[in-house]
Amino acid sequence: MEIRLGDNQYGKAETRLVRVDRHPDRHEVTDLNVSTALAGDLAATHLTGDNAGVLPTDTQKNTVYAFARDGIGAIEAFAARLARHFVDTTPTIHRARVRIEQYSWERVAHHSFIRNSGTRTTTVTYDGAAVTVVSGVDDLVVMNTTGSEFHGFHKDRYTTLAETDDRILATAVRADWRHMTAEGTDWNDSHREATSHLVDAFADTHSLSLQQTLHAMGERVLRHREELAEVRLSLPNKHHFPVDLSAFELDNPGEVFFAADRPYGLIEGSVVRDGAPEPGLAWW
Amino acid sequence: MEIRLGDNQYGKAETRLVRVDRHPDRHEVTDLNVSTALAGDLAATHLTGDNAGVLPTDTQKNTVYAFARDGIGAIEAFAARLARHFVDTTPTIHRARVRIEQYSWERVAHHSFIRNSGTRTTTVTYDGAAVTVVSGVDDLVVMNTTGSEFHGFHKDRYTTLAETDDRILATAVRADWRHMTAEGTDWNDSHREATSHLVDAFADTHSLSLQQTLHAMGERVLRHREELAEVRLSLPNKHHFPVDLSAFELDNPGEVFFAADRPYGLIEGSVVRDGAPEPGLAWW
Amino acid sequence: MEIRLGDNQYGKAETRLVRVDRHPDRHEVTDLNVSTALAGDLAATHLTGDNAGVLPTDTQKNTVYAFARDGIGAIEAFAARLARHFVDTTPTIHRARVRIEQYSWERVAHHSFIRNSGTRTTTVTYDGAAVTVVSGVDDLVVMNTTGSEFHGFHKDRYTTLAETDDRILATAVRADWRHMTAEGTDWNDSHREATSHLVDAFADTHSLSLQQTLHAMGERVLRHREELAEVRLSLPNKHHFPVDLSAFELDNPGEVFFAADRPYGLIEGSVVRDGAPEPGLAWW
Amino acid sequence: MEIRLGDNQYGKAETRLVRVDRHPDRHEVTDLNVSTALAGDLAATHLTGDNAGVLPTDTQKNTVYAFARDGIGAIEAFAARLARHFVDTTPTIHRARVRIEQYSWERVAHHSFIRNSGTRTTTVTYDGAAVTVVSGVDDLVVMNTTGSEFHGFHKDRYTTLAETDDRILATAVRADWRHMTAEGTDWNDSHREATSHLVDAFADTHSLSLQQTLHAMGERVLRHREELAEVRLSLPNKHHFPVDLSAFELDNPGEVFFAADRPYGLIEGSVVRDGAPEPGLAWW
Repeated sequence: MEIRLGDNQYGKAETRLVRVDRHPDRHEVTDLNVSTALAGDLAATHLTGDNAGVLPTDTQKNTVYAFARDGIGAIEAFAARLARHFVDTTPTIHRARVRIEQYSWERVAHHSFIRNSGTRTTTVTYDGAAVTVVSGVDDLVVMNTTGSEFHGFHKDRYTTLAETDDRILATAVRADWRHMTAEGTDWNDSHREATSHLVDAFADTHSLSLQQTLHAMGERVLRHREELAEVRLSLPNKHHFPVDLSAFELDNPGEVFFAADRPYGLIEGSVVRDGAPEPGLAWW
Repeated sequence: MEIRLGDNQYGKAETRLVRVDRHPDRHEVTDLNVSTALAGDLAATHLTGDNAGVLPTDTQKNTVYAFARDGIGAIEAFAARLARHFVDTTPTIHRARVRIEQYSWERVAHHSFIRNSGTRTTTVTYDGAAVTVVSGVDDLVVMNTTGSEFHGFHKDRYTTLAETDDRILATAVRADWRHMTAEGTDWNDSHREATSHLVDAFADTHSLSLQQTLHAMGERVLRHREELAEVRLSLPNKHHFPVDLSAFELDNPGEVFFAADRPYGLIEGSVVRDGAPEPGLAWW
Repeated sequence: MEIRLGDNQYGKAETRLVRVDRHPDRHEVTDLNVSTALAGDLAATHLTGDNAGVLPTDTQKNTVYAFARDGIGAIEAFAARLARHFVDTTPTIHRARVRIEQYSWERVAHHSFIRNSGTRTTTVTYDGAAVTVVSGVDDLVVMNTTGSEFHGFHKDRYTTLAETDDRILATAVRADWRHMTAEGTDWNDSHREATSHLVDAFADTHSLSLQQTLHAMGERVLRHREELAEVRLSLPNKHHFPVDLSAFELDNPGEVFFAADRPYGLIEGSVVRDGAPEPGLAWW
Repeated sequence: MEIRLGDNQYGKAETRLVRVDRHPDRHEVTDLNVSTALAGDLAATHLTGDNAGVLPTDTQKNTVYAFARDGIGAIEAFAARLARHFVDTTPTIHRARVRIEQYSWERVAHHSFIRNSGTRTTTVTYDGAAVTVVSGVDDLVVMNTTGSEFHGFHKDRYTTLAETDDRILATAVRADWRHMTAEGTDWNDSHREATSHLVDAFADTHSLSLQQTLHAMGERVLRHREELAEVRLSLPNKHHFPVDLSAFELDNPGEVFFAADRPYGLIEGSVVRDGAPEPGLAWW
């Protein structure tokens, strides 16, 4: 049996780019972590070390900085500009994926900022024909201190968990949502609204399982945002265990909790709009 | 020459405590990371393994949870309650230090919260006689996109740094401020105001060096908050280097920056109110 | 257009399990991080919160510990036992994936150990019919201080990288290799040999690109280990830049380097044995 | 009351330096993380932004790289060269502290290496008169699977911990040892031997408390290494809790453990040679 090269890609990961827009009345800051990944006719470098088809990862980094000179705009648009460039100008490159994380800064004064939690993300893929755009959030940490139950589950000989009709539900949301099209969307508006619906659905849902909350979050986004085709969520269940204080002759009416690190539940799922375009390379 | 036991302490680090206060109109959440450290007559356990004088670290953890049952209040007060307890009730323990980090949650709804950046801290020490209280913040990340210069520095044969009259100044503030007394202070109000002065001084100061900014931050706090005796600051200089785009026939008028990870400058200093009480065990 | 539930799975991540085997002449320690993920008929919990088909993640954790009571053996076998159990005994569960990381401890004495670097991994998937087994390593950090070149690459207007015929090549290997079958393999022997071939190929290959090294590593494993069908590698290019000392009237003949954090190249690829069985759920 | 500048220092943290020594028969690699901190007449930069006395942190970084051109040798000697340079050549600088972490690489072949766990450290301080040298290790993770007891401890109303005569004892050693003098020591030999004594004492000591083990480790080093004056240890108690399997009708004879993350005990102490020179600035 022969041995052959399989799927492969390469790129520059985590190019840290900060852009300052110096308006007279205020500065604006855009703080990004950009990762590029390219695929195409790359057998030669793998098999013989012939790099004639390899656009160096250093060049990819340079391109990120050079393109930022013209302004960034929404990260979805910036990622699409980069992805198109790599495929359209490098003969050997047939697919590009650009992933961007954007960190949040809140204005304190004219040119002063304080960093907030919450990361906005995008992953844009281009194959020479179609651009697919995924937007999202990462490490959005939320908690409900009540309104969460968990009971009626399947029990086997290894089940010891007590059923509960009141627990803390906390998670660090990673969500990625796929756009119907790559054109005609106000990316900033879409992102703000989708994120808001995620948080509202988390807060509003009386939860019988984190799965139910996950579905409610994805569904809420799709119901309100027609430009979106699918939402994928990854929700760690950040367990908060009530502390048994009875040895100290104290009760604990849902007030004192131990916040555990590991292990944690991990609930992953997607919610899809039927009839939406196929994902293509969106989740490649 | 004989070999002997020197300074020592022991305790339980990073007890993760979340308390929920269930008011009819809203829940409140207090999210803490509590570390206790005790010192005293502990030679026996070191030399012979006789643990008669050792209050287990597991007990220290239990005490944190049990005390939380009665409510937490400001972290400075909670830490003082714990420190006093350990020294006053354990014959062998003569000094206790309690360090608490408090994470920030912003209300979204009645019982729903989203986690914010920024950590409030306290370190309270008690030696059977005096309580010393230090409050602070950690990982408060701030940035000025202009208003920072650095020139006129000492040059030797290894100096290549260009002088600049306009750079980005960014740092992750760790600040600790020592209170004049352990009584009579509205801890929450004091903390909010001190933090606000730190941020304002960072934003307002036209900076010729990060040291100047550091001093301005500490001084601002002491000028406005009479209850405070000293401010200690540790400020990493999170370098943002302008990217040289000239190879691409582009200029870069202070717009495109590379945010570097390592190395980083590290500026540490304290600002002190003359005549304030001696720090005692504050920084022990 | 209707909205529907898409792909989903759930489980308990990062159950930290240490097992001690107490032989008279020596103890042995097995230190694992176990993550389970289950999929099946789980629409009800997502749509209505009806958990009748949900085996709690807490039960999955309990099962990991209970199964460890009978001994662990090779992590591939332990993962397969767990995966089969979840699917075969839970009516609603049709697919299970068990991922295990094993940390390395070197014996110092009869019952004393020191932790080494290097993580052994496995991912085993079972769908009620077939078991697929992937073994691997993670965070295996290697460096060649010479024998690496990079030149002849594609240049565009954003290319500034100098060509080099001598550079440091360093990476943190993540490799996953798929087994031809789930039976009849001495997992420990196979893992030791595959890892050794990876390291040897890294060291032996005079490299014209990290892609060439990647391919050589995968190919070497497949040439020597007939039980393996495919090797997937993810290799960050941990850049070491020679420091320009000319401003200090010093040369730098490949001796003094700056080890950069970010950005970094990221080279990903697979090497496949033609005619091997289809991967099925191996990379699910 | 007046407000004044208190203690302060500044420097460049975490300069990542790799040096390759290219011998015909083999290469050698030295992988360091160097942090410098300077103090002296620095009031002007804090109070007015006059930087005439400030040697830029960028220059400190350059100096680290330039000095590496001449070879590094033992990290204690390299740190001392740097500390002396900063104080002896910069009029305003009166104290320098250089902290170095050295990462461990094991040879695989002539110019190929694999990274091991374990970090060697040094902190060298110079004030224009005396050099003090501290050597150490960090993140040396060790475990005894038996030979550890904990009982006879002080009990109060919050004590629930069961006494045990057999537990796992695991820790990540941070140790720093102070040398009697800054001259005449074979640093590499001294470090290897001291580390070996630490590990042997951990393994050999039948432990009634982690404090007893800590003291035994420090004492062992001082008894065997006359060049050392003091050992400081910080030992997190990495708890391994036996899992209660009784609900599954299984016993657990000390075989199956949960490795907890937080909270953890933290035991800190020093062992001192009576009559040794005063520490001076060693722990500054």
